[in-house]
Amino acid sequence: MRSVGIAAKVTAPEALEHAMRVAGELRSRGLEVCFDDETAAALDDPGACWSKSSLGTHTDLLITFGGDGTLLSVARHAPSHVPILGVNMGTLGFLTEIRLEELPGVLDRVLAGDFQSEDRVALEVTVQGPDDSDRIYRVLNDVAINKSALARIIEMHVLVGGKFVSTFRADGLIVATPTGSTAYNLSAGGPIIYPTMSAVVVTPICPHMLSNRPLVLPDDLTIEIRIISSNQEVYLTLDGQEGLPLSEYDRVSVRKSPQTVQLIQSPDKNYFDVLRTKLKWGEA
Amino acid sequence: MRSVGIAAKVTAPEALEHAMRVAGELRSRGLEVCFDDETAAALDDPGACWSKSSLGTHTDLLITFGGDGTLLSVARHAPSHVPILGVNMGTLGFLTEIRLEELPGVLDRVLAGDFQSEDRVALEVTVQGPDDSDRIYRVLNDVAINKSALARIIEMHVLVGGKFVSTFRADGLIVATPTGSTAYNLSAGGPIIYPTMSAVVVTPICPHMLSNRPLVLPDDLTIEIRIISSNQEVYLTLDGQEGLPLSEYDRVSVRKSPQTVQLIQSPDKNYFDVLRTKLKWGEA
Amino acid sequence: MRSVGIAAKVTAPEALEHAMRVAGELRSRGLEVCFDDETAAALDDPGACWSKSSLGTHTDLLITFGGDGTLLSVARHAPSHVPILGVNMGTLGFLTEIRLEELPGVLDRVLAGDFQSEDRVALEVTVQGPDDSDRIYRVLNDVAINKSALARIIEMHVLVGGKFVSTFRADGLIVATPTGSTAYNLSAGGPIIYPTMSAVVVTPICPHMLSNRPLVLPDDLTIEIRIISSNQEVYLTLDGQEGLPLSEYDRVSVRKSPQTVQLIQSPDKNYFDVLRTKLKWGEA
Amino acid sequence: MRSVGIAAKVTAPEALEHAMRVAGELRSRGLEVCFDDETAAALDDPGACWSKSSLGTHTDLLITFGGDGTLLSVARHAPSHVPILGVNMGTLGFLTEIRLEELPGVLDRVLAGDFQSEDRVALEVTVQGPDDSDRIYRVLNDVAINKSALARIIEMHVLVGGKFVSTFRADGLIVATPTGSTAYNLSAGGPIIYPTMSAVVVTPICPHMLSNRPLVLPDDLTIEIRIISSNQEVYLTLDGQEGLPLSEYDRVSVRKSPQTVQLIQSPDKNYFDVLRTKLKWGEA
Repeated sequence: MRSVGIAAKVTAPEALEHAMRVAGELRSRGLEVCFDDETAAALDDPGACWSKSSLGTHTDLLITFGGDGTLLSVARHAPSHVPILGVNMGTLGFLTEIRLEELPGVLDRVLAGDFQSEDRVALEVTVQGPDDSDRIYRVLNDVAINKSALARIIEMHVLVGGKFVSTFRADGLIVATPTGSTAYNLSAGGPIIYPTMSAVVVTPICPHMLSNRPLVLPDDLTIEIRIISSNQEVYLTLDGQEGLPLSEYDRVSVRKSPQTVQLIQSPDKNYFDVLRTKLKWGEA
Repeated sequence: MRSVGIAAKVTAPEALEHAMRVAGELRSRGLEVCFDDETAAALDDPGACWSKSSLGTHTDLLITFGGDGTLLSVARHAPSHVPILGVNMGTLGFLTEIRLEELPGVLDRVLAGDFQSEDRVALEVTVQGPDDSDRIYRVLNDVAINKSALARIIEMHVLVGGKFVSTFRADGLIVATPTGSTAYNLSAGGPIIYPTMSAVVVTPICPHMLSNRPLVLPDDLTIEIRIISSNQEVYLTLDGQEGLPLSEYDRVSVRKSPQTVQLIQSPDKNYFDVLRTKLKWGEA
Repeated sequence: MRSVGIAAKVTAPEALEHAMRVAGELRSRGLEVCFDDETAAALDDPGACWSKSSLGTHTDLLITFGGDGTLLSVARHAPSHVPILGVNMGTLGFLTEIRLEELPGVLDRVLAGDFQSEDRVALEVTVQGPDDSDRIYRVLNDVAINKSALARIIEMHVLVGGKFVSTFRADGLIVATPTGSTAYNLSAGGPIIYPTMSAVVVTPICPHMLSNRPLVLPDDLTIEIRIISSNQEVYLTLDGQEGLPLSEYDRVSVRKSPQTVQLIQSPDKNYFDVLRTKLKWGEA
Repeated sequence: MRSVGIAAKVTAPEALEHAMRVAGELRSRGLEVCFDDETAAALDDPGACWSKSSLGTHTDLLITFGGDGTLLSVARHAPSHVPILGVNMGTLGFLTEIRLEELPGVLDRVLAGDFQSEDRVALEVTVQGPDDSDRIYRVLNDVAINKSALARIIEMHVLVGGKFVSTFRADGLIVATPTGSTAYNLSAGGPIIYPTMSAVVVTPICPHMLSNRPLVLPDDLTIEIRIISSNQEVYLTLDGQEGLPLSEYDRVSVRKSPQTVQLIQSPDKNYFDVLRTKLKWGEA
């Protein structure tokens, strides 16, 4: 490893401070460090090389300081071969398992190439306009289709593997990866999915039909969503972070991304440990 | 009864046709008929007296042709003493129980003053801005606070009867009457509430905290909701029909309206008959 | 007040110890103390006067040491005029709000007649056999009808106020008071109901029909449940504590008990404080 | 194919009648037909060869007449190489897709070896007693652990792949295959799982902890459930049909069965067609 990309939660002074400190240590070991634009600006560091979406493409390792949102903002753009190390600022995240105290030991092992990581499925989202132009996005957690706040229910036709599933009348629809199953999907009534499964879950948001329950599908089937409500504002949201308006005749296709996302694991806790803590299962 | 207000679903030709026919019959009986502006425009009838929000104030009886939405659009503005007759166009509604075939008999009885009606609780919604100006609205079904499609979760402080309940982090929050309990509230996971109860239900939409369950409250407690997310677009929606943006320091108070809404009941079906049909309970 | 009934959780040595200590203090103030049979046996105290079901009938005040279960076991038999003081052993209960440290101050005020209490609705459950014999029970939290573990789904006809509601095919059915809404009802998907409302909630347990949602009803309507599955073992459970088998032609009627249950309130916390703590709403 | 096993719903005269008729046709084509004991007794036919649990082991094809229950009763014992044809009696089942009218055409193709079938995952359930004796069962839909009707909540430790997941306090726990996901699992709040996925779902029944949500797992991890409630009656139920009491120190292990179950598919409907019909998604 020669080059390390670092992103921090820019609204958290502590995250910025630790990002800076760790960058110094890495540079003193002879590694090249670059921050994403935003973090660099917040730190007033000249090490800004790339935007968040390019940081992974030009580095050998990504480290994030902050919560799951900070990790998602770089991870969903990162190629498979770049391991990602999420350091939390005191509150365990689903994706940011590493505590600050663990970081020195974990980092030594990562730099030595001696670490465990998990390849997580990401989704490729294609929005095809009426002119057959394609816009392509990638998410690690989920893609959501939502009505605008002032709209009434939206109607969507959903096809899976080319077969018609149903017309959904709902506030919206979430397609989540196993990684994203504990995020928006869980709030909308979806199940928890073991993170390394080859699965996606399609979960309607406040469906009009009470039997429209979450649907777990193999990740090698393409999910196609056609908005059939006219005169409604409908939006697409990527990992809860980026959004774009959809037009009436847009078609949204969701399939497994050819690139997985490689998350470095904490050496001292497993998936169920994280679930128990985050969902407070251990408490009376 | 001297004056009858009529509103029809203007996108449904059949609803307009029956509205016109029944208006003719009423006029031939010597009654004054007026349509709301929209219906009058669609019918090209000079009988437009008032907007939907004023129709109930200037008539002795309201008749709607269409679905629950058509009834709601006039009913939430109507004073208690004006009975409302909801005629459905073939599909039973929760609020539009009367079938076209039943209408002649029901109408004769209504004009003779011989009918059953139910007084339904409506809610008064006050939006108080930072300058202490008050905007006041009335709903029959529900008031919803929603994040915009592109926003992340919103945070709200909820107080009931002046006591702090909790901070809700969610897509939004619904306050529904018993009448509205079978509408948006049901899709969001709330219970069915018997229509004549003195109750409201506060139901979070996709809450981040899974134990944030719907809360049924007596309707004589004021519910106050304070948006505490900054830099988020938040909207208020009235009966799923009218919406307005909220500002960051707006406070929303919901209390029982001093005026109830008087719905004329079908002589041949009760509340549970409607539930069974609408929710398909009777089927295998 | 001349006579105090005390019940403790007999499997909790600490509860027994405090029950004994408080009994001593009350006796030294000249009050008569009696324990229920079980507590007396566990304490080896000769003060056993009555069974749990009679303790309230023969005393002026009831104090329980333990959890909600201990309180329920005496409260559901107690007449309206006897206030009940639930002391928890470290873990706040929905019904046992008083901490040990608060007890001396609260007890002084209670003995001086200077306290706040809330009258909670209780339910009267009548099981009518094919020979028209009636067995009558009373619950403070809930009455549940359950299939046996080895049975398949059971089928029940439910009538409310004499009107047919639906046939429910489910593992069972809960009828809960507002007080009991945070117990079994919540686990089965029912809403939280403000404790002093005149309401009951009918919640099916794992219903076959997904639109069979919880139904909140006014407490002055009688709920009648008829088991229509033949050859199935079906049981009735009272407050999750006492159970009895039902026969195929038994009818279960649930109505408001003429007697409420009088719970002494903590001077320093309200209902929402308890909800927030018990349901962990305050946590991140 | 030389030998065909037939099972019918013995309480449905129509099912018995068609079973007899089809048996006659198959015999006239020179095939050997045998019924399971129960069906043979109901038909008074001497063709009873085997019990339901052995019928699949000694025949080349299984045909069932009735609902999903009838199919399950033979299918969960059948070896992988024996295709199973489920004929419904008018009501489409999740597992019994073939209508009587379709049967002649489908049967011709099946006998000619020209048909589509799907291999469905079955589960092997091992109950290990304190003396290390093993009892082994197989299910196609689900295995459920349930408290008795009169018991309170039960407590279970769940381990997955040897790792501790959580302590569940609930009425019970369901482990369902994708095939079984639309049965008991759906009523208990679990998701729908595409039938050919290598997945199981662990769904608590009325959990005390509201964040104990259904958990979808890969089917190559062993799920181990240890009952830790003492003095409670706890039962194991296999496909909702057979049950047995568990002792306090019994351990239940659930893993993928080495044998799948081979279901013959209707030539004219796919999985989503069945879902839409059964869950009434197509209706307004």
